[in-house]
Amino acid sequence: MKLEVPVSVRWGDLDAYGHVNNAALLVLLEEVRVSVFWHGRHLPDGVAHVRDPHQDATFVAHQEIEYLAPLDYPSEPIPVTMWISRIGGASAEVCYEVPTLDGRVAARARTTIVMVTKDTGRPRRITPEERALWSQFVDEPIVFRRAR
Amino acid sequence: MKLEVPVSVRWGDLDAYGHVNNAALLVLLEEVRVSVFWHGRHLPDGVAHVRDPHQDATFVAHQEIEYLAPLDYPSEPIPVTMWISRIGGASAEVCYEVPTLDGRVAARARTTIVMVTKDTGRPRRITPEERALWSQFVDEPIVFRRAR
Amino acid sequence: MKLEVPVSVRWGDLDAYGHVNNAALLVLLEEVRVSVFWHGRHLPDGVAHVRDPHQDATFVAHQEIEYLAPLDYPSEPIPVTMWISRIGGASAEVCYEVPTLDGRVAARARTTIVMVTKDTGRPRRITPEERALWSQFVDEPIVFRRAR
Amino acid sequence: MKLEVPVSVRWGDLDAYGHVNNAALLVLLEEVRVSVFWHGRHLPDGVAHVRDPHQDATFVAHQEIEYLAPLDYPSEPIPVTMWISRIGGASAEVCYEVPTLDGRVAARARTTIVMVTKDTGRPRRITPEERALWSQFVDEPIVFRRAR
Repeated sequence: MKLEVPVSVRWGDLDAYGHVNNAALLVLLEEVRVSVFWHGRHLPDGVAHVRDPHQDATFVAHQEIEYLAPLDYPSEPIPVTMWISRIGGASAEVCYEVPTLDGRVAARARTTIVMVTKDTGRPRRITPEERALWSQFVDEPIVFRRAR
Repeated sequence: MKLEVPVSVRWGDLDAYGHVNNAALLVLLEEVRVSVFWHGRHLPDGVAHVRDPHQDATFVAHQEIEYLAPLDYPSEPIPVTMWISRIGGASAEVCYEVPTLDGRVAARARTTIVMVTKDTGRPRRITPEERALWSQFVDEPIVFRRAR
Repeated sequence: MKLEVPVSVRWGDLDAYGHVNNAALLVLLEEVRVSVFWHGRHLPDGVAHVRDPHQDATFVAHQEIEYLAPLDYPSEPIPVTMWISRIGGASAEVCYEVPTLDGRVAARARTTIVMVTKDTGRPRRITPEERALWSQFVDEPIVFRRAR
Repeated sequence: MKLEVPVSVRWGDLDAYGHVNNAALLVLLEEVRVSVFWHGRHLPDGVAHVRDPHQDATFVAHQEIEYLAPLDYPSEPIPVTMWISRIGGASAEVCYEVPTLDGRVAARARTTIVMVTKDTGRPRRITPEERALWSQFVDEPIVFRRAR
């Protein structure tokens, strides 16, 4: 099951081209991820949140993003689709699809996150409770459409 | 030949973990690229800058980044290595390597940029003069080391 | 009447001290202002939005902000109080009060905005319709408490 | 004596109006301040840097800025003038003047900073060594020209 998460775009996310800047888009995707993983927001009814026992510390190990259409400044939050394509021992691969206001795909992204212990920065194993929660949102890996 | 370009990290680039945030790193790499491509800075002696006849408009089509070590806030600009791995008809693939303060690799990145005409946003062909300039900085495509 | 406007703080707004950075707070206040003035969101029932006939272009002429307590990363949007203390011919003074999560005042701010025509950047007069809308939210000028 | 400090503007500092955003300007001024106060850069010849014994922690208590002219994206660092108008027991008032590319004044700002102990966040007294260093850069308080 994929999650649909509303995220607020800021006028400040626009660059001198008048579109959401690609680096700003990464900040938006980060916020989508933490609002669900850290705060348990936007979970479907009946799905209980599992707090990170190690104080919500995540290291981003890898990111890949394709930008297909520019994003204008919307007057409402935009619904970003997010899911998980792989859960490892201490890492997970998170996929995102961002729509334009007129229903096309603005961007696709995949981020590899590593769960770490905040004090030491060392990887720590994903707990059984976290795995049980996240497994509900596992789906096929995102496919990047655009030839590089 | 690869270019070495100094870029100033800001204290504001640090996130709540006290390291340069991954989205902030993309802003830094964007600045490395535009300082050379748009302003002709940091070119080797004897290499003349070629201005973009279409007013320096670039669309980022794709990005891939691996983050290998956290970046602390330095007291001096950091030397980012940048080169081009491919020049297409209207696009180019730009590669970056970012060092830590103690000589390890903090991050590797590859960005596909598309040259567009600022007024219309439509792709435009890379000029012979631009191609001649950029060809001097073509090198092997970056190899991402970390298993995803 | 003062407006209460929810605004989403991002994890990315935190600086290396783990609190919302003062420059990031300005971006948040800008978003509070544009969400109401440009998009007509968060208006009380029965109050109709008036669109800017000149395409929503605003120049910030002056800002004053006192920071009284650090802002932590909240798990919900925070309610910012906003009102207008003065409406001039082409400008207005907007006041803000930002609460901490435990009910203290984190910051007070006052911004002078000038309405401009987007094409020329020249000031343009506030329309009677805008004045009628904004007058509903005029209140006493904010008082900065802290001795400088 | 006032200090002249070069600061690099990023293309990413531009907003959808194509000018340096007011919040981005605050980040630039913060970087001017920390590059001198924390890293001892840009000090005149013969002036030795004094490191903050409490690990460079500063709380911004108050800011006032007037924006007089828009700032375009420059191809070189811009020279910001910075000085101190007041040194208190645990705080200082820092003044800035930012030029446009054609020699006008783009912005004036004044920031009140409080020196804190990083661990506790409590104010700590400015040391005699710091006071001796900063006193060399004390000048008259900045005068805001624009009627609010």
